[in-house]
Amino acid sequence: MFPPSIQKLVKIFSKFPTVGPRTAARFVFYLLGLEKEEVKELLDAISTLKEKIRRCSFCFNPFEPAQISNKLGSGEGENELCEICSNPKRDKSLLCVVEKETDLETIEKTRKYRGRYFILGGTVSKLKKQGVKDLRTEELIQRVKNSEIEEIILALNPTPEGEATLLYLERLLKPLNKKITRLGRGLPVGAELEYADEETLSSAFDNRK
Amino acid sequence: MFPPSIQKLVKIFSKFPTVGPRTAARFVFYLLGLEKEEVKELLDAISTLKEKIRRCSFCFNPFEPAQISNKLGSGEGENELCEICSNPKRDKSLLCVVEKETDLETIEKTRKYRGRYFILGGTVSKLKKQGVKDLRTEELIQRVKNSEIEEIILALNPTPEGEATLLYLERLLKPLNKKITRLGRGLPVGAELEYADEETLSSAFDNRK
Amino acid sequence: MFPPSIQKLVKIFSKFPTVGPRTAARFVFYLLGLEKEEVKELLDAISTLKEKIRRCSFCFNPFEPAQISNKLGSGEGENELCEICSNPKRDKSLLCVVEKETDLETIEKTRKYRGRYFILGGTVSKLKKQGVKDLRTEELIQRVKNSEIEEIILALNPTPEGEATLLYLERLLKPLNKKITRLGRGLPVGAELEYADEETLSSAFDNRK
Amino acid sequence: MFPPSIQKLVKIFSKFPTVGPRTAARFVFYLLGLEKEEVKELLDAISTLKEKIRRCSFCFNPFEPAQISNKLGSGEGENELCEICSNPKRDKSLLCVVEKETDLETIEKTRKYRGRYFILGGTVSKLKKQGVKDLRTEELIQRVKNSEIEEIILALNPTPEGEATLLYLERLLKPLNKKITRLGRGLPVGAELEYADEETLSSAFDNRK
Repeated sequence: MFPPSIQKLVKIFSKFPTVGPRTAARFVFYLLGLEKEEVKELLDAISTLKEKIRRCSFCFNPFEPAQISNKLGSGEGENELCEICSNPKRDKSLLCVVEKETDLETIEKTRKYRGRYFILGGTVSKLKKQGVKDLRTEELIQRVKNSEIEEIILALNPTPEGEATLLYLERLLKPLNKKITRLGRGLPVGAELEYADEETLSSAFDNRK
Repeated sequence: MFPPSIQKLVKIFSKFPTVGPRTAARFVFYLLGLEKEEVKELLDAISTLKEKIRRCSFCFNPFEPAQISNKLGSGEGENELCEICSNPKRDKSLLCVVEKETDLETIEKTRKYRGRYFILGGTVSKLKKQGVKDLRTEELIQRVKNSEIEEIILALNPTPEGEATLLYLERLLKPLNKKITRLGRGLPVGAELEYADEETLSSAFDNRK
Repeated sequence: MFPPSIQKLVKIFSKFPTVGPRTAARFVFYLLGLEKEEVKELLDAISTLKEKIRRCSFCFNPFEPAQISNKLGSGEGENELCEICSNPKRDKSLLCVVEKETDLETIEKTRKYRGRYFILGGTVSKLKKQGVKDLRTEELIQRVKNSEIEEIILALNPTPEGEATLLYLERLLKPLNKKITRLGRGLPVGAELEYADEETLSSAFDNRK
Repeated sequence: MFPPSIQKLVKIFSKFPTVGPRTAARFVFYLLGLEKEEVKELLDAISTLKEKIRRCSFCFNPFEPAQISNKLGSGEGENELCEICSNPKRDKSLLCVVEKETDLETIEKTRKYRGRYFILGGTVSKLKKQGVKDLRTEELIQRVKNSEIEEIILALNPTPEGEATLLYLERLLKPLNKKITRLGRGLPVGAELEYADEETLSSAFDNRK
């Protein structure tokens, strides 16, 4: 019903995370109502994104290299590190494995964790069809092997998908003989005992202090 | 916390309707994971949108002129009509005023209404600060005056904003001496009497048949 | 796990409408915390309920006969009418058929309807297993036949169950040659066109005014 | 609008936890539709509840004394213990303080905790107006003082009310020189890191293992 060029953009926006066709249509009409300069700003921001952003050669976190480091620039920048990985104050004996970029951000905001990260790039079951080959498991093993890392924190969601990934990684990393931990379960802020599931409540008793 | 080029795009996406900073961040990481060709496809779709899409000179509905009409092209295409407005089978004695493009789409899907539309471009209270000058009220009056239009259906949401707009338009259009109607209130499909508000239930009694 | 007398009461409360076992348990602990007089008040209110309340011999609405009418009392009170049915100001040419008592209450609150009611006692599909024999259909036909009733308003929920009941009643009442109406469909207060289903929106166009 | 005897029962039911006037009305109409024997069963269950159920003289958990213990019965049964408190296998060095009866039930279902309980009877802020005098704090102190209890687990909800109560009890119990613990915070089953609050996530890191 929409004209073809609107339909096409609706289809593209519908693939964005959390976006359905109805919201995608609202995005298109929003764009139609923008000034030319605003559209140009969006186009520029999208098109320069991939140029400006690199993935950290250690943790795969997207980062924007400072200009100085560009000048020094070692060709393709293959060994460039993000701000966290290049920070000498971060504890190199700790490695926190997360599913995705936003999980890293969330953990950083707590200022609780002072080690380094590793972004796995997904979970086991989401990638079922194509096996687990899209997870950065080889890179993870390589980072851990013969390193100064002493503890690997598998900071995965306590969801079925996260659990499956956690078990998979535990098997994979076991031969490397490092301490492997997982995040503590318990009652979250604001919870009520009465509505807590048994596993969560049991963990809350185990972790009492 | 995000690098500047990510922050910038997060800020732009956060202005999209229904999008908050968290979802905007997910959009950016989604874009970072796309193939180059996929990003190019998005950029093309956005940048050609404004070129390809025109607003109907009668109802302001966005449409994509067929190539033939382009060849005939009357200079700036100022008098181009969308498919609905140029359809000789649509009843020109009816004009349905809607707030926005998606409302027009929703009504078209019912196949109930066979007249023409007019997209007002907003509601009264949303635009409070800048007055109502952004609503296409002058264009609406011009379309109605001395026309073959007999009934103006004010198809606005039965929300406080929609109601305010409806009252405003009723006052505005009154001097033109046309029949002015509003959509019927009543129980929607799936409703339960017990939870209906009094106004809705009263209307359901009035509109019984 | 609960002691037997608590378990028993939990089981009974679990049959109350909208109550699950967890809420039922909260009810029991609430009762355990009440003062003796408060429990007595509850017991009295429940036990006298059936004695004091009669069902209107016309519409089946529960009502409490005034003491005077009791004194006059014709034995079993079989012909007693509720306040609505005995009110000479109510329009006897209108009959509004509702599923249950609370629907009647909701309609009365609108002060829109000034005729009489008939409480059907359920819907068709809820009672599927036992047929429709529990609905007061015979009593309904008897009330309508050879009466001064001119219009029967089938005020049933626009839900699948309500619709099935409505169609069933229409067939049943057709031979009586009365005007049969149903409540008007349309947009309820606060709705947004964009999210309205097609049937509701079509009705809103039909009922415009 | 309802007759007085219905109104009265609606009012009483409206005081039940989680029940509003609308649900209370549904309860009354449900009762009106019950058979006489069913109403009698409800009345019996309510009226015998207080007779049959006693509160454990140690933990205040409601329980139903077995007939044998009644025969032995020491007059007023003041020293009667519930099944948990009289179970020799329960660890008497542990005391778990909970707000209410259903919290005890929830914890018992996990089969994680093998000590005894103490039902406080409320939280601090709920009882603000009347001070904290309705909480069983004196009884709690008495149970703990000079007892074999070694650890007191304050199993209160991680809500503002629960937190306030926890702090209050910690101050109160401190002079008794027992180990005082609280339930562990962390990610509950099914949670997603991305949506976890900072305090919960920090605790999840602290409690990792």
